[in-house]
Amino acid sequence: MTAAADTTVLAQRAARLEAADALGDLRERFDLPDDGSVYLVGNSLGALPRAVAPAVADAVQRQWGRSRVGGWNTEGWWAAPQRVGDRIGALLGAAPGQVVVGDCTSVQLHKVHLAAASEARRRSTGTGQPVRRVVVADPGSFPTDLFVLASDARLAGLEVVLAAPPEVPAVLAARGDEVALVALSQVDYRTGELWDLPGLTRAAHDAGAPVLWDLCHSAGVVPADLDAHDVDYAVGCSYKFLNGGPGAPAWVYVPHRLQAGFANPVPGWNSAAQPFAMTGEYTPAPDIAVARTGTPQMISLLALEAALTAYDDVDVVAVRARSLSLTGFALEALDALVPEVEVVTPREPGRRGSALALRHPQAWGLTRALHARGVEGDFRAPDVVRWGVAPLYLSHADVLAAVVALRAVLDGGEHEAAERAERPTVT
Amino acid sequence: MTAAADTTVLAQRAARLEAADALGDLRERFDLPDDGSVYLVGNSLGALPRAVAPAVADAVQRQWGRSRVGGWNTEGWWAAPQRVGDRIGALLGAAPGQVVVGDCTSVQLHKVHLAAASEARRRSTGTGQPVRRVVVADPGSFPTDLFVLASDARLAGLEVVLAAPPEVPAVLAARGDEVALVALSQVDYRTGELWDLPGLTRAAHDAGAPVLWDLCHSAGVVPADLDAHDVDYAVGCSYKFLNGGPGAPAWVYVPHRLQAGFANPVPGWNSAAQPFAMTGEYTPAPDIAVARTGTPQMISLLALEAALTAYDDVDVVAVRARSLSLTGFALEALDALVPEVEVVTPREPGRRGSALALRHPQAWGLTRALHARGVEGDFRAPDVVRWGVAPLYLSHADVLAAVVALRAVLDGGEHEAAERAERPTVT
Repeated sequence: MTAAADTTVLAQRAARLEAADALGDLRERFDLPDDGSVYLVGNSLGALPRAVAPAVADAVQRQWGRSRVGGWNTEGWWAAPQRVGDRIGALLGAAPGQVVVGDCTSVQLHKVHLAAASEARRRSTGTGQPVRRVVVADPGSFPTDLFVLASDARLAGLEVVLAAPPEVPAVLAARGDEVALVALSQVDYRTGELWDLPGLTRAAHDAGAPVLWDLCHSAGVVPADLDAHDVDYAVGCSYKFLNGGPGAPAWVYVPHRLQAGFANPVPGWNSAAQPFAMTGEYTPAPDIAVARTGTPQMISLLALEAALTAYDDVDVVAVRARSLSLTGFALEALDALVPEVEVVTPREPGRRGSALALRHPQAWGLTRALHARGVEGDFRAPDVVRWGVAPLYLSHADVLAAVVALRAVLDGGEHEAAERAERPTVT
Repeated sequence: MTAAADTTVLAQRAARLEAADALGDLRERFDLPDDGSVYLVGNSLGALPRAVAPAVADAVQRQWGRSRVGGWNTEGWWAAPQRVGDRIGALLGAAPGQVVVGDCTSVQLHKVHLAAASEARRRSTGTGQPVRRVVVADPGSFPTDLFVLASDARLAGLEVVLAAPPEVPAVLAARGDEVALVALSQVDYRTGELWDLPGLTRAAHDAGAPVLWDLCHSAGVVPADLDAHDVDYAVGCSYKFLNGGPGAPAWVYVPHRLQAGFANPVPGWNSAAQPFAMTGEYTPAPDIAVARTGTPQMISLLALEAALTAYDDVDVVAVRARSLSLTGFALEALDALVPEVEVVTPREPGRRGSALALRHPQAWGLTRALHARGVEGDFRAPDVVRWGVAPLYLSHADVLAAVVALRAVLDGGEHEAAERAERPTVT
């Protein structure tokens, strides 16, 4: 069968899959250009939800401009970190009062690493057991996780043991009673591989160790069921599949049972029990506010809150189903049309997040040439094109269009010339 | 002379002072309601500069909506923390490349406390001298400064010695060779008192100790001349007199000479020499980026950048002169019209920041009753009304209107009824 014939069949299949999908295409909730382009970088910066611009205009002009400092009360600014946290929590299977928004992911990781070290010290007190000092972390974590962890290990006297998720159970079997924290990402940002959050959490707990899940690359597209799996800590950003905007604030999950002992290493005034008592004596907040730091960046936070309305009446289980349908169909189309491109992402649905990693020796040129055809993906050195598949605003037809464009780029050798284009400092 | 007669004389004096002021009233650069109200809480949340709304609309709709992830390059997002830092630095007497914007003040304080502790260890290495472990701090600091410092002291094995600024030289004389850091605020947020930044910096340096100045309450209205005074570290928020918006990002000053050794305790990927190398090995940035953490909250940062255009072609020395003229005239008017209200703020110009603290047993009622008359100040328990005097958008006539309203409130006993109003949880 020729590529053209394949494409016709695939287009029919795209239409059938789209019709069968329970969630449907929520593209109308987003402000996307109507030019046939396909945005596959939602795993890096989500597209703009339509609700954001009016909400931000109101936040600036009316709330700040007219309510001014009174806005901390009258506009609900003070409570916003918890309010928006609850909205994110609902997508993560966290009951209200356990997620708070603020800071960046690096700061949230820092808080949890040091709080977990403190908790390990507290738990050993009076037991006669040595303090647990090992943190098990994935060497494939996003760099910031490892940078901050290495620094925290120096600060708190921890030992970092690097182990990819499949090796973590063996590490726990060997050294489980030394482990203060198992720190993993639910999805590998390079390959799009989804790790077994329930199983790895159970393995850690069996060894008496708490877990920290970095959900940056999965929040909003893969259910985490944090409460159900008794997860100890989780953090994430909100600018990827949550579509919160450039650098949108991060969040942290600390379940009720760990809040009273949460030793926030940046106990700014927003984390105090009585922030307006204005005394020098610190008493930590008795709830999730204990994980706040200083004054939250309200315009960005309100942009995020508006962005999350794209998830109104949306069940993350349905999002996951649509995501798998989209990535599964992308794999079919890639196999049919561009079999020479290696797909790094696992093919089993249960091992896929919502992004695909395609390997090609001229991945940079492919990325550029696809961009010229309106298919925006991103490049990871040395040889990977990443396609983030955002289920809220991409359709099966979009996915097919991207694969068809890839076929055309390769057929025309467009990537050869593009390979020589200057590489950006920021991707 | 009667109050009415006084008021006429004072109004004439207000007009003369206004005419004589070199800076002039830049109120047109701000979006303020045209209803005769007087906003005296610019020391808590600055008024909205007119440039912000269009800039934020562009940031959301065009930059995020259309440039999407490419905006990190094409819209200059990646460089924004340093670019906006330089703009703030210009108001602080800091040459370019020494101020970076991001995080909240609490996180910036945390970075500097721990970096200074690290620097003290480094400097002692090989000298045979004990490591300096004392941090001298003002017990009157804003609570977050003390909360974070106490926590950092536990983390890094520091001893906190509390001393009000006038007592700091004596502490330095007694224990100077133990001091790792002198951490002070340029202006006392409660009283509006301005401390002697040059003299206290010199005293610290004479003892071989670095200084950290918290400029939250003075940046933009009092020159700091950080480079000229060889200041070691400074931090501040940008939502007070810098008018950056609710929770606008904080900033940190680390001079060139301290950047190479700056041990950022939250070394997120934005602080790395090659953030996009995507390896687990951390090499700190060789410049002020070393003080960055994770991805900056871009919408809030671009709002701040636009807000700072209110300072275009404005010399902070002229702002300081206007501020002193306004607060000095306020003192005259208070003396003439409401002599029964005690002014806590020092009367010497060299000891005044840009806010006045008025003491009255029914300060809460006064605050409420003034608010009902369109004069917005804030209340600090138990007995202080604070008036922030923002020189960019307040005039001598505004200041007089506030004092006249205060006289009327007291004459009418309006504060008596208002004293019973419910107190807010957030002020």
